[in-house]
Amino acid sequence: MLRGPEDAPSRRYVILSEGWFANRHAKTAHGLLRYGRGGPGEVAAVLDSTLAGHRARDVVPGIPEERDAPVVATLGEALAHSPTSILVGLAPAGGRLPEAWMEVLREAAGRGLEVVSGLHQRLAPELTGATVWDVRDAPEDLPLFSGEGFGVGPKVALTVGTSSAVGKMTATLEIERAARERGVGTEFAATGQTGVVIAGWGVCVDAVVADFVAGAAERLVVEAARTSPELVLVEGQGSIGHPAYSGVTAGLLHGSCPDCLVLCADASAEELAPGVPRPGPALVARVYEEVAALVKPAPVVAVSVNTRGLGEDAARELVEETAAATGLPATDPFRGSAAPLLEAVLRAPKTAAAGL
Amino acid sequence: MLRGPEDAPSRRYVILSEGWFANRHAKTAHGLLRYGRGGPGEVAAVLDSTLAGHRARDVVPGIPEERDAPVVATLGEALAHSPTSILVGLAPAGGRLPEAWMEVLREAAGRGLEVVSGLHQRLAPELTGATVWDVRDAPEDLPLFSGEGFGVGPKVALTVGTSSAVGKMTATLEIERAARERGVGTEFAATGQTGVVIAGWGVCVDAVVADFVAGAAERLVVEAARTSPELVLVEGQGSIGHPAYSGVTAGLLHGSCPDCLVLCADASAEELAPGVPRPGPALVARVYEEVAALVKPAPVVAVSVNTRGLGEDAARELVEETAAATGLPATDPFRGSAAPLLEAVLRAPKTAAAGL
Repeated sequence: MLRGPEDAPSRRYVILSEGWFANRHAKTAHGLLRYGRGGPGEVAAVLDSTLAGHRARDVVPGIPEERDAPVVATLGEALAHSPTSILVGLAPAGGRLPEAWMEVLREAAGRGLEVVSGLHQRLAPELTGATVWDVRDAPEDLPLFSGEGFGVGPKVALTVGTSSAVGKMTATLEIERAARERGVGTEFAATGQTGVVIAGWGVCVDAVVADFVAGAAERLVVEAARTSPELVLVEGQGSIGHPAYSGVTAGLLHGSCPDCLVLCADASAEELAPGVPRPGPALVARVYEEVAALVKPAPVVAVSVNTRGLGEDAARELVEETAAATGLPATDPFRGSAAPLLEAVLRAPKTAAAGL
Repeated sequence: MLRGPEDAPSRRYVILSEGWFANRHAKTAHGLLRYGRGGPGEVAAVLDSTLAGHRARDVVPGIPEERDAPVVATLGEALAHSPTSILVGLAPAGGRLPEAWMEVLREAAGRGLEVVSGLHQRLAPELTGATVWDVRDAPEDLPLFSGEGFGVGPKVALTVGTSSAVGKMTATLEIERAARERGVGTEFAATGQTGVVIAGWGVCVDAVVADFVAGAAERLVVEAARTSPELVLVEGQGSIGHPAYSGVTAGLLHGSCPDCLVLCADASAEELAPGVPRPGPALVARVYEEVAALVKPAPVVAVSVNTRGLGEDAARELVEETAAATGLPATDPFRGSAAPLLEAVLRAPKTAAAGL
């Protein structure tokens, strides 16, 4: 779904996260609690019987106090908090939701709740009669890339990664927060299921037919520019070095017509696929710049370093190493401030298409 | 659709190409006539009233004598040649087929012909009751990329381009022909609608949901390797420098796990999009190699130069310039022989994933 930011809905969510709420793969749950736009009460309750009685902030770091929510054991308890919608708070690796979760969703739908899901598995056909927002449904009539994105007014910055799941959405949202705090008019262009749930609009580009990924990204940026912000921050996906997802990454890299890139890296040494090493930030930054420059130059201007799981010293060391390796400003915007990333983006000039 | 090469069907086609048969955009029509696997009679007739009375070879260069077919004015005349299927021989830029063509397809279906179409617009829902092969329909249950492709036995070569529509399919098929003539066991892995019609199997990767492009390409190569050929030739798509299609290109580049690349270039100076220049072969070859090397090294080993429209001298000059600019063997396999391209591919070593 793609629509103007002014249409942002005012939902009150129960997040279905049974047994998973503390797990870092519960990205949609954590993302919405941390960064949702709906104001206090947007998350009415979290449903995870294994953590019932806690508050969300006790379990997951980084949730603002005013966005805290109770963790409850049953749908009945959650309903006492007057939700409008139930959000599937996890994407199971196997693809399909377990039957026990489907049962909860059916019951919630029967009680009048909208069902919101970011799975590749579409729930609308399985929950007949229910109101379902399948976040990954692509808009109808997506265009091919046209070049219209070259002409937007605001500066466009895109996050890119050394890998997938490296913190691109978080970095984008932290830069956005820093920009808003500084009074810079900013739009967040969401490209993944969690980002779209948070923003209330956007396109899950990984679910678009391949020929239309660049056109979808371009339309997102054109749409975000409609409100005349100074800055459009595009959520990146995958990695140019990740064999499973590099197609989505390249489509976004060209389609969103960025003026500059913020590289996201982390401490992991995990392979991207069997035999495929995680590329170093300096190497992958160069490749991003070379691929982008074929269409429109977009220098990497800063590195967002995800230091999750490291102690203070190790975290500082990783940030310093990354800065030294790339010659760029580097910081962990989640642990510290996103200001250095924002400043690098604001300093970067707008660029023109390669042939202009 | 993806299935083993042994399932190749024995169709007899009428090619619907009304008013367009001589146009170079009638790629599917020309490709099937030139390179089809079904033997003599695979194309029973070409339907184009503006050229009726000619033979296909009089109009389109490069059709082997034994694959020649009459051009006829009406479906009735075409039916006298006992076709089994009617092929939509052109993809209109607007996306949807003109009603006059739909009328012919309906009539053909009513006469028992299978309708075969490579359009993004699916015809099955519009021709209820007819037997329709929508070539762009993706197989069900495509996997994500797994790394299985790293382990296939044959050498894998992928064609890549300075642009889209630069002759990648033709180069791939000419290399295949040269390989077969030399007795090299070869499979052609088709990735676009014309290639899939020619081969009778394959996947139109541009019509696959973006997350699954690399997985589809990998499965194609694994499938092509099942018959234990020495060489798998993967038809490339788009260009890493084309803003509309680079996502598909990157997905193929990583997903098909090639050991080497054959770059396809042409004489055109046309922009890829407004303000986006066509990259030179040396530049784009380097970018392909850098992107590939993040996952698995795949050097560009030769350049296929499309000299269509040039005189003998200008063609030779362009080939020589390209060879000099890239330091690679270069030739026009359509005008001359694909042997130099094949030899470069056969000389290239198999490569391992970047981390092995």
